[in-house]
Parts: sequence; C-alpha cells; structure tokens
Amino acid sequence: MEAGALSALTPVLARVEEDLADLGRIGARAGGGVTRLAWSEEEGRAKAFLVERLARLGVGAESDEAANVWAEIGPEGAPVLAIGSHLDTVPDGGRYDGALGVMAGLETMRLLLEAGRPLKRRVRLAAFTDEEGARFGTGLFGSTAVATGHDIDHLAEVRDRAGVALAEAMAARGRRLEELGRARERLDDVEAYLELHVEQGPRLERMGRDIGVVTAITGIRQVEYTFAGETNHAGTTALADRRDALLPAAETILAVRRAAERSGGRAVGTVGYVAAVPGAANVVPGEAVLSVEVRSPESEVMAEVHGEIARAAEAEARRHGVEVVRAVRHHVAPAAMDPAWRERLRRQARALGEEPVDLVSWAGHDAGALAARLPVAMLFVPSRGGLSHAPGEYTAPERYRAGLTAFARTVAAWAWGLEP
Amino acid sequence: MEAGALSALTPVLARVEEDLADLGRIGARAGGGVTRLAWSEEEGRAKAFLVERLARLGVGAESDEAANVWAEIGPEGAPVLAIGSHLDTVPDGGRYDGALGVMAGLETMRLLLEAGRPLKRRVRLAAFTDEEGARFGTGLFGSTAVATGHDIDHLAEVRDRAGVALAEAMAARGRRLEELGRARERLDDVEAYLELHVEQGPRLERMGRDIGVVTAITGIRQVEYTFAGETNHAGTTALADRRDALLPAAETILAVRRAAERSGGRAVGTVGYVAAVPGAANVVPGEAVLSVEVRSPESEVMAEVHGEIARAAEAEARRHGVEVVRAVRHHVAPAAMDPAWRERLRRQARALGEEPVDLVSWAGHDAGALAARLPVAMLFVPSRGGLSHAPGEYTAPERYRAGLTAFARTVAAWAWGLEP
Repeated sequence: MEAGALSALTPVLARVEEDLADLGRIGARAGGGVTRLAWSEEEGRAKAFLVERLARLGVGAESDEAANVWAEIGPEGAPVLAIGSHLDTVPDGGRYDGALGVMAGLETMRLLLEAGRPLKRRVRLAAFTDEEGARFGTGLFGSTAVATGHDIDHLAEVRDRAGVALAEAMAARGRRLEELGRARERLDDVEAYLELHVEQGPRLERMGRDIGVVTAITGIRQVEYTFAGETNHAGTTALADRRDALLPAAETILAVRRAAERSGGRAVGTVGYVAAVPGAANVVPGEAVLSVEVRSPESEVMAEVHGEIARAAEAEARRHGVEVVRAVRHHVAPAAMDPAWRERLRRQARALGEEPVDLVSWAGHDAGALAARLPVAMLFVPSRGGLSHAPGEYTAPERYRAGLTAFARTVAAWAWGLEP
Repeated sequence: MEAGALSALTPVLARVEEDLADLGRIGARAGGGVTRLAWSEEEGRAKAFLVERLARLGVGAESDEAANVWAEIGPEGAPVLAIGSHLDTVPDGGRYDGALGVMAGLETMRLLLEAGRPLKRRVRLAAFTDEEGARFGTGLFGSTAVATGHDIDHLAEVRDRAGVALAEAMAARGRRLEELGRARERLDDVEAYLELHVEQGPRLERMGRDIGVVTAITGIRQVEYTFAGETNHAGTTALADRRDALLPAAETILAVRRAAERSGGRAVGTVGYVAAVPGAANVVPGEAVLSVEVRSPESEVMAEVHGEIARAAEAEARRHGVEVVRAVRHHVAPAAMDPAWRERLRRQARALGEEPVDLVSWAGHDAGALAARLPVAMLFVPSRGGLSHAPGEYTAPERYRAGLTAFARTVAAWAWGLEP
C-alpha cells in the first residue's frame, strides 16, 4: 500500500515542460539562450514566475534577506527537508541549468498536494539567488548566505564590470548587506537538502543512463600567478639579457595540464586567463599574469596538484630570472554527499528499473555550499551532448523523466514518513 | 691643410646639451620622460623648435606633404647628402632617441656655416615624422613617404586607440593623405643619407667603445597566430575531451624562444602579446591569440626562424585538436648599410683615435626605410645601461662627443669635396 502510494506518484511531464517553456521565455535571447544575471530584472521576473506558479497551488512564498525564494508545505513544527536549485543563468546560458531543479521541486510539491496523503514532515522549496556568480563573481551567493553566512566587509567592496556595487544592486531589490546574516535562520529547522540538476557533462549520455547520484561536489581553487621580469625592447635586448616574464608563464600553462593529467582523473586543471604586460608585439613582457584553476573532489589531491604547479612555476621563474607571486582568488572546499540520502535516491531509481550511476560533480552547486551545514544529496539527469552554459543546453523530457520521478518519490517517502 | 680644416671641426658640446635640454622640455613628463606622439601638438612644437634654431643660423626650413621638416645649406644644383633623424617619441620615452640625431645634424650645419669654407655639395637636414609608430602603428611614416611612398588606401583605414583617423590627425596639421605621394620628390636629388642615433642597447657601453658603425638594420616580421579550439566548462569537461586553444599557444611561446636561440645570435624572437578567449578562470579557452615577432638583419634567417616556429605551432595544434591560422601584421625588410659610407664613418672615427665597432641595429630606423632608395649609413653612440624608450634613457656628452665629431667630419669631408 505504501509502495503503491509511492509508485502512483508520477510527474506530469507536459506541465513540467510548460513550466520550463514559460520560464525559458524570461531573459530569452535570439539564439535560443537565456540571460538572467543575478539581481537583474530578469532574475526578479523568474522568481516572480515561481511565486505565481506556487500561488496556483495555494502555496504562499517568502523571500529572505539574500532574496532567496522559499515556499513550504506540511505540518507546522515538523522536521523539514529543503529542495530546490537556482533561477539565475550565465550570459546567454541554457534553459535547464538550475531551472530544471527548481521546476522539479515545484512539480514534487504539486504531486504531494495532489496525492492528498497527509504529510508527516515538511518540504521547503528554495530558489537560491546568484548561483552562477556571472555578474559579481559571487557564485553560490544565496546558498552560502543561508549555510555559513558571508564576509560582509568583502561583499561591501564587490562591483560588477560596469562599476555597479553589489550593495546597490541588492538595494534596488530591497535587500541590505547589513541584514544578510539573518538569512541563516532559514535553515535552523532543516534536516537535509536535496537537489536535482542537469549533469552539464557527457557521462550519463555516453553510458546510456538517465540517473546519476552525486558522490561529491568538486572543490575549486583558483590561484592567480603574477610573473615579474623586465620590460625591454624586443630588438635591442639580446636573448641572454632578457628577463621575459611570459616564458615561465608559458611553462606554467603546460605544467597545469601535466599536473592535472598525473592525478589520473582525480583532478582537472585549467588556465583560462593569461595576459602579457605591456602587451605590445615589439616589447619583451616585463609582467605576465595567469589564472590557475584546479578542481578535485578530494582536498588533498587539489592541494597536491596546486603544489606541483607552484613548484614548476617557481623553478621556471628562477631559470628565467623572473619573480613569481601567487594569490588565491577563489576557494570552495570539496563537499561529500550524505551516504544515507544517496542511498535513498538510488533505491527510488532502482525501483524504476534504472541503474543509477555514481558521479562526481565537477561543477559547483548550491548543494555544495549547503553541505557545510546539512546532510545534502544531488541527483543528475543527462545533458544532451554534455553541453551546458550555452544556448544549446537541452534535456529531453524522456531523459529527465526517470530522474524527476526518483527525486519526487525520495522526497515523498521521507515526507510521508515511509523512510526513517 | 685639408686635414687641418677637418680636425678643426669640433662640436661645441655645451650648445648641443642646451639644444637637447630645451627640446627635452617639450612633452616632458613628471618622471623625466617625454611624450611626443606623432601628429600631436608636442611633436609640432618640437618641429617648430628646430625651425627656430635653424632660423638663428639664417637657414630657412620647409615642411613636406608628410610633415617632415627639411633645411638645406650649400650651392644650388650641387649633389645632396641628407642627414637627420626624428623628433617624435614613444609614450613616456627618452630624450635622446631620434632627438640626438636631429640635434647632431643641426650642430653639423652650424659647424659648417661657422667654418666659413665654401661648400662644394649640399647638406639637407631632415626631421622625419612618426618614426616610432606609437600612436597609429605607422612607424617610419615620414621616411617611408619620401623613400618608397605609402599604400594610401591602407592609411585611409588607420585609426588610433581613441578612434581618431590618421587622416583627421594629419588634417589638423594641414596635411592631406591624397597629397602624400608628392613627398618622394624630396629625395630626387639626394645621393645618400647619414644618421646618428643612440644605440638603444648595451653593446658599446659593455665594450667601453664610443662609436658603432651599423652594418645592417634588422628586418622585422610580426605574425599573429590564432588558435581555435573549443570553449568548454573547466569542471565538467574531462582533460581528454578538451580542445584547449591555450596549450598549443603556450608551446608556441616556448618554440619562439628556442628557434631564436638556435639562430646563434643571428635573430631574436619575442611573444609580446597573448590572450585567451573568453578569458575567464573557469572556462577552457576556445581561442588563443599571440604575436610572434622575429628580427634578423638577414632575410633568410628571419624566414627560417619564422618557418621553424610555424611548424612547431602546427604540430602542437594538431596534437591538441586545435586549428591554427597565421596573419602577417608587420613586415620590414632588413637593410644593408652602404660599404663606402660605412668606411667614411670609420675613417673619421679612427682619425680621432677611436676604434669603431661594427654593429647590427636590432631596432628599426628611418635609415632603414631610406635604404630602399639610397645608399645610407648610421653611426651609433652609447646608451647608458642600454636603456631606451624609457625615462632613464641617457647619453652623457663625453659619450657622444666622439661619435658626433666623426659624424660632422664625415659630412664636412663630403660637402667640402675632400671625399670622392
């Protein structure tokens, strides 16, 4: 009978598709992508869209000090399971990243209300502000606000490329930096957090599987390297007399790849930014700057790979008579997913006849920020061609059907008290 | 008696120093440097200063279609020797590069007029416009205009970084692109060109010598490399799935150095500019652009070194699944100096008890442009610390005394008809 109730809980894909289509029109761009930057009018409209859809269910919504949207069903005072994701996007991003997780939470609430079965525990839906960090470099903003809180002094200095202060952008939406600390109260009664998300990579598609259960969310550490040599005339300065800052920088770019390869799949490493200063074709660069990003679900591996790169950079700098300094620009610790919640997700997947795949998430997620405070787990559905953060990002309803079903049933089993 | 007349011809260093000091105040910057960009008010004032100093000698000056300043002494219809250099500078450049050559020409004219000995041949002083190319990327502008002429269609497209068209900047000084071709007439009766210049490198100072005689002016060929891979998420894209455009670019930066080193001092190579696109720390670069400059006084060596770099770039691009295209951005052919005029300079140097040093010029000069039309020769004086294009550029009068004396006597010996 209980298994019967769960197996009757089946998402209505047509209305989820309609939700996604309506949401996808907010911030839509000519080429099929969407742009909903944090604190923008478009992000605000996406949140208003969610509030309106909840109102159709008779569920009220609130917005906290970080502008996260919250809505809840279930008996007052009972334990809470939070579910959700985010509604902001990168510039010209996709219509599934974040959006599918929030719509999955909405559909889950709808199914629970339609099932009519009394909830023994509460389910709280969240749409977190600024997961992407595309505008202010403040990714995981809303989830960090509720999980650990922010360094307000640092945030007070933050501006976007147009020079607009984060504090101004928040004020335009009626939020104040000084009150941000109070957002943490939103998790005071929450026992765990579950998130459904598109994989943003090709692994599930290549394996022909539809459900991934995340084992850990990668740590991310970005270090900026600045090499300081001597600016010189590119004609009259003999090779032996040069202190060309770009040469050890180029060696370091290659060292990043080598060190990541040596990790045997336990880390990835990327140089995404490089500049030579002053940057003229006929001037030996006196300075070179580059970003070194290493990601790993294991803290020690992330530290080892960064250490190997730093040693290579220092040796090459010495060889070229150049100084090198490093500055950490971004650091997110790896987050392990909760074994009990992973097992609950796997169980519901298997009940559907699916064989869930254990996957590391190589992208950051709100769940990673929340893991600092709560047990969390994540379920991945496939991304067509592995494409993400791009207009072509797509997951067909047949590809997210199983994942959404397993997700909704995991939430229902807990809310109905069928799971311990 | 003739040797006596020549040995009496001795520059008055105090007035040359005064000229340099007065000229150095035009466009002077706080840190000791000067900024006199081409077509600027400051370059105009520097030319006006020269015209005023010539007027003190009773010598009239003219300005041609390229805004080069010309002044002449000697009998109408006689053969002409041109001498000179340029008055423009790079931003925050030095007070000797170009300026010392023009002031050396001015002092030579003064000495010839003071000597009172009748001239059998003419001496024509030139101050060429825009040798540096710092504003419009149109270096050797004035000397090219008189030597070979310009591609006017190309110049019509040229703008500075502020978007000002070269044609507008010229119009503000009363010059028209369409008339530029007429400037070539200025060399119709000229037999040869001599230029004195600071070395802009450390070789003379290190050898403890005061006179360099240039054997050849380096060729310069700048090629832009664009690597096209695939932009991807720096987390979810496994290393094996990447087509990171920056990796073959980094290999190419190192290949430039290796190829130049293998030339055994016959070429130098520099990467002065590099960019990764889109340029974010957490994005695998789908594009990388870099400049490759090779200089050599030998055309074949320049071509060989560029060829070796191109082969390395193509092999690395292939290895990383990346496309690479090349585009020539700048090309100046090497220019050999005239053996007879080099020997005349050496002879006057040795008569002073100096042992002149044969040197390749690794920087471009107006003499290089003029070499396409005339026999040319250049004399180098030391640069303190080899420094140039910088506020600290300096040559003490004791260090340019010998070079200026040899230069003036070489001009006088020819103008007086003592040399064939």
